[in-house]
Amino acid sequence: SARGPGKMEDYGRFLALLVSALLVGFVSVIFSLVWVFHYREGLSWDGSPREFNWHPVLIITGFVFIQGIAIIVYRLPWTWKCSKLLMKFIHAGLNTIAMILAIVSMVAVFEFHNAKNIPNMYSLHSWIGLTAVIFYSLQLFLGFAVFLLPFAPVPLRAALMPIHVYSGLTIFATVIATALMGITEKLIFSLKNPAYSASPPEATFVNCLGLLLVVFGALILWMASRSHWKRPPEENVKVLRPIGETPEGTEAESTMTDGSNADKSDLRINSEAARKQNLKLDEAGQRSTM
Amino acid sequence: SARGPGKMEDYGRFLALLVSALLVGFVSVIFSLVWVFHYREGLSWDGSPREFNWHPVLIITGFVFIQGIAIIVYRLPWTWKCSKLLMKFIHAGLNTIAMILAIVSMVAVFEFHNAKNIPNMYSLHSWIGLTAVIFYSLQLFLGFAVFLLPFAPVPLRAALMPIHVYSGLTIFATVIATALMGITEKLIFSLKNPAYSASPPEATFVNCLGLLLVVFGALILWMASRSHWKRPPEENVKVLRPIGETPEGTEAESTMTDGSNADKSDLRINSEAARKQNLKLDEAGQRSTM
Repeated sequence: SARGPGKMEDYGRFLALLVSALLVGFVSVIFSLVWVFHYREGLSWDGSPREFNWHPVLIITGFVFIQGIAIIVYRLPWTWKCSKLLMKFIHAGLNTIAMILAIVSMVAVFEFHNAKNIPNMYSLHSWIGLTAVIFYSLQLFLGFAVFLLPFAPVPLRAALMPIHVYSGLTIFATVIATALMGITEKLIFSLKNPAYSASPPEATFVNCLGLLLVVFGALILWMASRSHWKRPPEENVKVLRPIGETPEGTEAESTMTDGSNADKSDLRINSEAARKQNLKLDEAGQRSTM
Repeated sequence: SARGPGKMEDYGRFLALLVSALLVGFVSVIFSLVWVFHYREGLSWDGSPREFNWHPVLIITGFVFIQGIAIIVYRLPWTWKCSKLLMKFIHAGLNTIAMILAIVSMVAVFEFHNAKNIPNMYSLHSWIGLTAVIFYSLQLFLGFAVFLLPFAPVPLRAALMPIHVYSGLTIFATVIATALMGITEKLIFSLKNPAYSASPPEATFVNCLGLLLVVFGALILWMASRSHWKRPPEENVKVLRPIGETPEGTEAESTMTDGSNADKSDLRINSEAARKQNLKLDEAGQRSTM
């Protein structure tokens, strides 16, 4: 058709990107473990550099990888038969895990700094990183209050959804930028004789980890910003309540719908129908990619 | 209306964001000059640290500020009476200036490194920065060949436009991330006694520059990703050639249209009509914010 490739080809393309993102994210986590166990002192919780090492491992695992999955979890076609409410809980749950891991990873740095009498919060990395954690927590709290709890009126949900999506993607990009600053700092501080500038194996290896984080971020942002890969609106709600006629029920906002369309078996056909419905809702201003 | 605030309020909101972005970008350039003239050795082209200092100044002026303006230049309502072709030349011209400044700024670093026998291309900052410059140049070259030269068929333009927009925004975000790494490196290397960790005035000042770059990036990405602030399609083309009926002429792709609707005087009314037309084109898959 004029709108692009056929539905099966499009589904295959989504799967290829998803597998790539999972692979790159998983390899990033492995790289962070190889970094701290093979090149550094390993992990422990005793104020030593081994406690600091939890910082990159937990940031890459939680604040990059798990946050990235949380961002695209609505896009997985095989979840479209699950209720929107369940998916919201999974989205909020993954983001909560990511937030906890990010906070624990910061505690590890503060404890290490305090044990070694290294000042806290002097670097651009620390300023932007702490800001990102604060905004991330606010975003999670507001998202929970507005989109998960059943109290917020639909116009408020509709008004806040584009901001929620934009904030989420911007915070995610900022977190990756902060991780790149952190890698830069740590390599400069810890590589002496040979120095970072002599490109010892650890420097090259961890630079590659930085590249992987950029590729992971780029893949997640691509998947999150394709409007034709959005979760379709709940069909039962759509049929009963035409858009704009009722104060509740458009897919992007409702927390009340259950999984009553769970018996749809061909997800690819669902996907094609969903794309058309998404375009309608885009026109009605009820959905936003960013 | 149900779709949001009125057109005048929306226009005022765009202007407020534009003025904020221009202000933050301009202050960032000033900060880079204060950094190199007040805290560092100033500027010259002699292999000394003064030559290196061209690097942050030209990157922040060209690769951040001018690139940011290039990204949102189609959004300025008072340019909507200019021909699309003219605006494409301005978009490509600003990006060309940004690319040249980025390349000159890299030459400054290489010459400084070579004069001081400092290795090149060992850091994550250099790896990602060079990659960004290469992708930026490819993007500019491909954009020129596909969207400015009149040879590419419309289906190719339509297929590549979402990729062009996504690549542009992703490269822009990557450039800002790279600038943050560069600030981190430079402060660690150049601040000794007092060190970066002692938070001397230069450290605090340049950290603030880093925050300004993040805010600038966030403002540009917000303006670029609001579909209702897009440039409207050329009306004459739209009226003569309904979407989907002819192989040419949709606004996002055509390079042939001239400024024959230049006598529209009320840009805010244009803006409102444009928003509706944008939504139609969104539905036809002919336009993409990202």
